Amino acid sequence: MEESAVAPGTRRPGGRTARTRAAVRDAVITGLAEHGYPALTVEYVAEHSGVHKTTLYRRWGNLEGLIADALDLAGEDGWSPPDTGSLEEDLRALAHEVVASFTDPAAAAAPTAFVAAAFQSDRAADALRAFYTTRFARCETLVERAVERGEAPAGIDAGALVRAVSAPLFFRLFVTREPVDAALADQSAVAALAAARAGAFNAPGETAPAPEPPASA
Amino acid sequence: MEESAVAPGTRRPGGRTARTRAAVRDAVITGLAEHGYPALTVEYVAEHSGVHKTTLYRRWGNLEGLIADALDLAGEDGWSPPDTGSLEEDLRALAHEVVASFTDPAAAAAPTAFVAAAFQSDRAADALRAFYTTRFARCETLVERAVERGEAPAGIDAGALVRAVSAPLFFRLFVTREPVDAALADQSAVAALAAARAGAFNAPGETAPAPEPPASA
Repeated sequence: MEESAVAPGTRRPGGRTARTRAAVRDAVITGLAEHGYPALTVEYVAEHSGVHKTTLYRRWGNLEGLIADALDLAGEDGWSPPDTGSLEEDLRALAHEVVASFTDPAAAAAPTAFVAAAFQSDRAADALRAFYTTRFARCETLVERAVERGEAPAGIDAGALVRAVSAPLFFRLFVTREPVDAALADQSAVAALAAARAGAFNAPGETAPAPEPPASA
Repeated sequence: MEESAVAPGTRRPGGRTARTRAAVRDAVITGLAEHGYPALTVEYVAEHSGVHKTTLYRRWGNLEGLIADALDLAGEDGWSPPDTGSLEEDLRALAHEVVASFTDPAAAAAPTAFVAAAFQSDRAADALRAFYTTRFARCETLVERAVERGEAPAGIDAGALVRAVSAPLFFRLFVTREPVDAALADQSAVAALAAARAGAFNAPGETAPAPEPPASA
């Protein structure tokens, strides 16, 4: 299969595929942010990525494939969760990251466009689910470290705890359409931690409260 | 100004406006659920409501006005929050209502369509914010009753508590695209309650924990 019309400056075989993919991802994100899912077309992505339309169809199948791959690539960003040495501070940092991302219009555009696209494309919804599954799996290491330090009980549902920190923020951003700020980030983190300490995220049958946090916390 | 082409069977002056409005609302919801915001047109609403297009433009201005009014009308449904006599049971019932609504495709269609439309229309976003502001203001009575019974501290941010119950469910439904079920409803309610009891929703400066719940709770 021949390689047609990749972006300028991407001639080396090793880097070409990755750079083409990144160029296509950037065009998909720009298009989603500017026009939304239903208005985005393969023609738009071809024009803005410099990758020929026939290449896009051959490699990505269709527009939904392009969106799904852009999300896959977004998930390969090497992001890792905060590691401050304290569960409370890690959860606060996580919440503040969400607020910082979504109160900066440039940073918010791509994730907002993906969340919106998922309402109208099952394949985008599947890709978004995969993205968040991976993202929250990484977050769970933060809880595992807290368990090792005795700040959370061993039976805790780490995924539920880290989702509980983000949920009140995303709920206001994308459902109730209310403002989010640093105070709300702190409240979300403190509430999730209090629930964790009370055993609310323990697996069924392990409803005993978490150990008291160390006196230094 | 003349009244043109209202729906059949809506001739009495008193009921006509209300019934026309309801017919238009139903057409907007059907259209949003079936086609999404960008594909919905005033023509579609006219055809499916039996209300003439010129009437729609005159009364509602444009498509965004139609969506906003459909949401306003949805907010006038007389819904009231659970009143079981126990804060924990009220919060559980609230969470189970959310799960029941969104796991029933027929019940989920309209609210899902409104949440989706808010991504693409500022006026729909404003209307959605107004809808949830009213809805959660009603929910706050549930917390006020709990404060009177001594189940929650007087300084509690009732709005934050009731949002905390719904947030993990909506977050999974519309952002992470993960399944929700009765167990997650219970976990959300229990976690929010534990956070409330720990004082996490108290106003700044009132961070003392809530009173211990009565022994019967």
